[in-house]
Amino acid sequence: MKIKAGVIGATGYAGVELVRLLLKHPDVEISALSSVSFEGKQISEIYPSLREICDDTCTTSEDVVNSSDVVFAALPHGLSQDTAYQCTQQGKKFIDLGADFRLENPEDYEKWYGCEYKYPELHDKAVYGIPELFREEIKGKSIVGNPGCYPTSIALGLAPALKAGVIEPLGIVIDSKSGVTGAGRKPTQNTHFPECNEAFSAYKVANHRHTPEIEQALGKVAGGSVSVTFVPHLLPVNRGILSTMYAKLTGKLTLNEIRLIYEEAYKNEFFVRVLPEGTSVDIRNVKCSNYCDIQLYMDEHTNLLIVTSVIDNMVKGAAGQAIQNMNLLFGLRETAGIDMIPTAF
Amino acid sequence: MKIKAGVIGATGYAGVELVRLLLKHPDVEISALSSVSFEGKQISEIYPSLREICDDTCTTSEDVVNSSDVVFAALPHGLSQDTAYQCTQQGKKFIDLGADFRLENPEDYEKWYGCEYKYPELHDKAVYGIPELFREEIKGKSIVGNPGCYPTSIALGLAPALKAGVIEPLGIVIDSKSGVTGAGRKPTQNTHFPECNEAFSAYKVANHRHTPEIEQALGKVAGGSVSVTFVPHLLPVNRGILSTMYAKLTGKLTLNEIRLIYEEAYKNEFFVRVLPEGTSVDIRNVKCSNYCDIQLYMDEHTNLLIVTSVIDNMVKGAAGQAIQNMNLLFGLRETAGIDMIPTAF
Amino acid sequence: MKIKAGVIGATGYAGVELVRLLLKHPDVEISALSSVSFEGKQISEIYPSLREICDDTCTTSEDVVNSSDVVFAALPHGLSQDTAYQCTQQGKKFIDLGADFRLENPEDYEKWYGCEYKYPELHDKAVYGIPELFREEIKGKSIVGNPGCYPTSIALGLAPALKAGVIEPLGIVIDSKSGVTGAGRKPTQNTHFPECNEAFSAYKVANHRHTPEIEQALGKVAGGSVSVTFVPHLLPVNRGILSTMYAKLTGKLTLNEIRLIYEEAYKNEFFVRVLPEGTSVDIRNVKCSNYCDIQLYMDEHTNLLIVTSVIDNMVKGAAGQAIQNMNLLFGLRETAGIDMIPTAF
Amino acid sequence: MKIKAGVIGATGYAGVELVRLLLKHPDVEISALSSVSFEGKQISEIYPSLREICDDTCTTSEDVVNSSDVVFAALPHGLSQDTAYQCTQQGKKFIDLGADFRLENPEDYEKWYGCEYKYPELHDKAVYGIPELFREEIKGKSIVGNPGCYPTSIALGLAPALKAGVIEPLGIVIDSKSGVTGAGRKPTQNTHFPECNEAFSAYKVANHRHTPEIEQALGKVAGGSVSVTFVPHLLPVNRGILSTMYAKLTGKLTLNEIRLIYEEAYKNEFFVRVLPEGTSVDIRNVKCSNYCDIQLYMDEHTNLLIVTSVIDNMVKGAAGQAIQNMNLLFGLRETAGIDMIPTAF
Repeated sequence: MKIKAGVIGATGYAGVELVRLLLKHPDVEISALSSVSFEGKQISEIYPSLREICDDTCTTSEDVVNSSDVVFAALPHGLSQDTAYQCTQQGKKFIDLGADFRLENPEDYEKWYGCEYKYPELHDKAVYGIPELFREEIKGKSIVGNPGCYPTSIALGLAPALKAGVIEPLGIVIDSKSGVTGAGRKPTQNTHFPECNEAFSAYKVANHRHTPEIEQALGKVAGGSVSVTFVPHLLPVNRGILSTMYAKLTGKLTLNEIRLIYEEAYKNEFFVRVLPEGTSVDIRNVKCSNYCDIQLYMDEHTNLLIVTSVIDNMVKGAAGQAIQNMNLLFGLRETAGIDMIPTAF
Repeated sequence: MKIKAGVIGATGYAGVELVRLLLKHPDVEISALSSVSFEGKQISEIYPSLREICDDTCTTSEDVVNSSDVVFAALPHGLSQDTAYQCTQQGKKFIDLGADFRLENPEDYEKWYGCEYKYPELHDKAVYGIPELFREEIKGKSIVGNPGCYPTSIALGLAPALKAGVIEPLGIVIDSKSGVTGAGRKPTQNTHFPECNEAFSAYKVANHRHTPEIEQALGKVAGGSVSVTFVPHLLPVNRGILSTMYAKLTGKLTLNEIRLIYEEAYKNEFFVRVLPEGTSVDIRNVKCSNYCDIQLYMDEHTNLLIVTSVIDNMVKGAAGQAIQNMNLLFGLRETAGIDMIPTAF
Repeated sequence: MKIKAGVIGATGYAGVELVRLLLKHPDVEISALSSVSFEGKQISEIYPSLREICDDTCTTSEDVVNSSDVVFAALPHGLSQDTAYQCTQQGKKFIDLGADFRLENPEDYEKWYGCEYKYPELHDKAVYGIPELFREEIKGKSIVGNPGCYPTSIALGLAPALKAGVIEPLGIVIDSKSGVTGAGRKPTQNTHFPECNEAFSAYKVANHRHTPEIEQALGKVAGGSVSVTFVPHLLPVNRGILSTMYAKLTGKLTLNEIRLIYEEAYKNEFFVRVLPEGTSVDIRNVKCSNYCDIQLYMDEHTNLLIVTSVIDNMVKGAAGQAIQNMNLLFGLRETAGIDMIPTAF
Repeated sequence: MKIKAGVIGATGYAGVELVRLLLKHPDVEISALSSVSFEGKQISEIYPSLREICDDTCTTSEDVVNSSDVVFAALPHGLSQDTAYQCTQQGKKFIDLGADFRLENPEDYEKWYGCEYKYPELHDKAVYGIPELFREEIKGKSIVGNPGCYPTSIALGLAPALKAGVIEPLGIVIDSKSGVTGAGRKPTQNTHFPECNEAFSAYKVANHRHTPEIEQALGKVAGGSVSVTFVPHLLPVNRGILSTMYAKLTGKLTLNEIRLIYEEAYKNEFFVRVLPEGTSVDIRNVKCSNYCDIQLYMDEHTNLLIVTSVIDNMVKGAAGQAIQNMNLLFGLRETAGIDMIPTAF
């Protein structure tokens, strides 16, 4: 029998990407979709790409919880906690694509999001869901804080080096560039085509909400405190994140030795590809897929390790990783429903 | 002494393009700018491209009228008539980049725009301003209805053939494609980057408000009734319109003979370039300029003349042509302030 | 046992799209890939998107034929005939994504492509493969001429109206716009990013090689001669074709009645969606899918039916339709391996 | 009498941008254009944007030297030295947009470009031409090494902080993103539209030829050794460079104090705009202009100064700055011919 999966916030970009992927998942059927903005409308009215494929009518979040074995929520922060509570009361799995279950420290959450933990005990049941780094911890859990798109690209890019102690954990510089779907479905001046096309800018410089999440994720991996300077940029493409990371080398390993550490770390990971020397990561090579590509460089004259990583922000950075987490929660094949091949162009 | 020019609606796309061009006009100084949405703000706060170049504070339309010799209005339809009235009362020139003075027939105006002529006598004083086609009529006037972007590209493309009677005036098919600045500054779902980029669609098919304007302009040129099917498309670029026009040939002229008619018609026109055989018009070749490029083809097996024309919708299709009209009204060199060279890339 | 499928010309855009889709086809395994330009290289060196997914080494076309049950060829015209011959000699199916088996009249082929039929008898065995229009004829055949991208979008858009006699078959105007993948993988000045981005132009006006193919396909459907004026344009997007078609109405059917004819014609077609009134086709709604969306309009004052259709030129316009044809040849479920959901953004 | 200016390599992107700007320069007339690839062709055949504006026929570099008071060369490295020699022999000014006169150390030049100084004495006569930083040194010279696009954006962004000693000169991290015109006119696989559009990647990581030039320029300003890690990225837009720079703070100045240093440093500079707090630089705000916009940030928890700067790579990064240098050499108003207003969209 198929797992019944529901999506709350199905008409946002992450939500509809979840719908698109879940529709093809071999072990899942969609139980219900909800949308505050479009309740009572068919999702295919909002996304005509889905016409005749999924014409489900958007209902309420309550309906979604009641009819589902697993509930995905793609909501603005602060709104997921009540749903998470309902799910746990009903013994259902909850995967939050928003930010409410990412930060483990309530003070951080309040500082960066201006919200409080409504049900502190829920946070103990929650896990931060990057399968490649925290797989075993995810398996038993009932609530997953699905990581932010930037933190996913960054944590996968830096984890092996931090774990192996080949880079300094403090003062890592991270320069990230994200496609515009990361800004969501709501039109704004910044994302209005004539002002976004042929444009490029940094935003929330050293002040983005993903900063504490990045430091937390890297800290877990490093087993100690990590500090980063994080600067995101808005890239005039639809999909994709490239993060360029600069970290001080600690010792005398060569680039080849560090590459071996990465290859070893990810040798059993279906979705992470450590590229051979002489090639470059490009967001187009992971487009519409759950892959993360990584390339390494060394700048000997400044003694830095430079790591570049790319993901599709809507897949590995959101809906795809959420399904990967679901697969872990339910003991399914981890790649089920998300082993799409990148589109190349 | 310089002409004092004011812009009402200066923070829309056509308005700010006017500002940009007027700032470099050798015979003009900007007297005042107004904006309903941003009154009291510097225009360079809205458009940081203008910082330290034009930091004028947006004022009211009354201030603009009072302080100017010529008033440009870039407003939604229906709102220009009162300003036009004030200008004529004060003996000032008025150039309307909106639609209120384009249609000469009040029924057409009411049918397509849902508005009435408030001051019918003003419309007698107004002229439809495509200088290349109606130059002598423009010169003495005090109100100019600055043409729509689509009609400009189309009228210039078809006029010589219609005038010479080499094509049938009825049933001309016009397939146009416009860059997104044509949709204005206000963000919408359709112009939200992720839904506009890598997208392409037709809109207002055979139902666009420029249709009666096109037929009116072509009818003047042809000296009789002209009917067109007009289908605009939204092109994922910032600037530019390409119109592809299909008209039945009337007789036995060869393509070369028709080309000679075009070359003769435009031989003294600075801003119209009839391209030589074997080359193509491209919106990029007129970008940021007031040029209109035209190329002609014949399909012998269906007996059609095919005309392609390109303009920059913001320049020849709006602000540039408005200044060209101003130059005519004030007896200035017609190319003054608008002889920019296309940027090529 | 899975069908062994080989791809000749696997490193072109249509070829690699075939590889991407075939890798996920439930009833197929890839037997061999060939490339003249990259023989001896792994396809994932050319397309790093395929790394760790398909690292097959490109071999020769002979190897492909020998090891396959069905051979797909994505080659420049003129080069497929020998391979087709080898396939038929070995009792294998051959699906040509090039132009060699599209035109049924050798004079047309010679006139438009400058090549001769090398094995005239092969052309008798070949079928023109648009499944929605010629399904029954395809089923028994061993050679398929996979249609051009433009003709596919056009034939699906006009077939019901032509079949029902609601439009005049002569003098149809077709204005098409194609994404740049349609121009192939080889870099050229026209497709160099700075000259293609923010650009738009028509090309091969009334002179494109797809013209006779369009007229042939429409003629089959209409049961008589059809003539078209066909003007393609290069659209600055990666994927997608939108065709806008203008045809004279023959009689007194209303738009709703014509819409019913279309809905009836395509009611059992998985891949064709006739949109409801009030909505528009957009290339983004079929991106990365095998769907064709169609919308209808009527211009009463010029008595035209206007049809807009969209496909993904790489899928329904090339690789997807080729697999759809393969499915028919082998009696598989027609949608197998190509029922991808459009990506929406 | 106007200055006679010639352009060698006029059909490359920097060359044609020079032509476009020189045509509007009030004190200059174009004497001759040359192109090895297109000798004997009109430049407007290569760039139809120039049709009827500049239809000059491309000649040889000798003709350019002989007929000009000042020669601009936009050539691949290694090719400018002989022309520079001819110019100095004839007492003419020479402005090199290539790399031959940028590096002052012959070993650096040989290491990074694989070429030798042919006329070492010429390099003594040459000056590195960023007017805002080295104005007085430029004035008397006869040869200008026009800076690279990346170094310009970077030197202007870091100079005030380095001069004032508020940042550490060693280990500065520079993450730059450039539009595709920076890659030149020649089509390549990487710049083929379908592989460049919707794509993003780093290239020549910590290995780009601009690295020694950056360190040299910053070293002059700092009065001592500066080391940087420089990583450029290819941005899918036509024009523009954004550099994000990360430098360790040396002391206790606040961000506001550092901002004051920048404002003071550039208060008389027409082309440099230090933005007010709360705003961001964007490449679109300097498009088609000679401006450089700068914004500053501080990351207190990692003790970094973050500087973002933007220029148009074709104008301030190439042709515009070359003309600015020419203006200095000839004692003209420094902004003459290059005070274009950015296009905003």
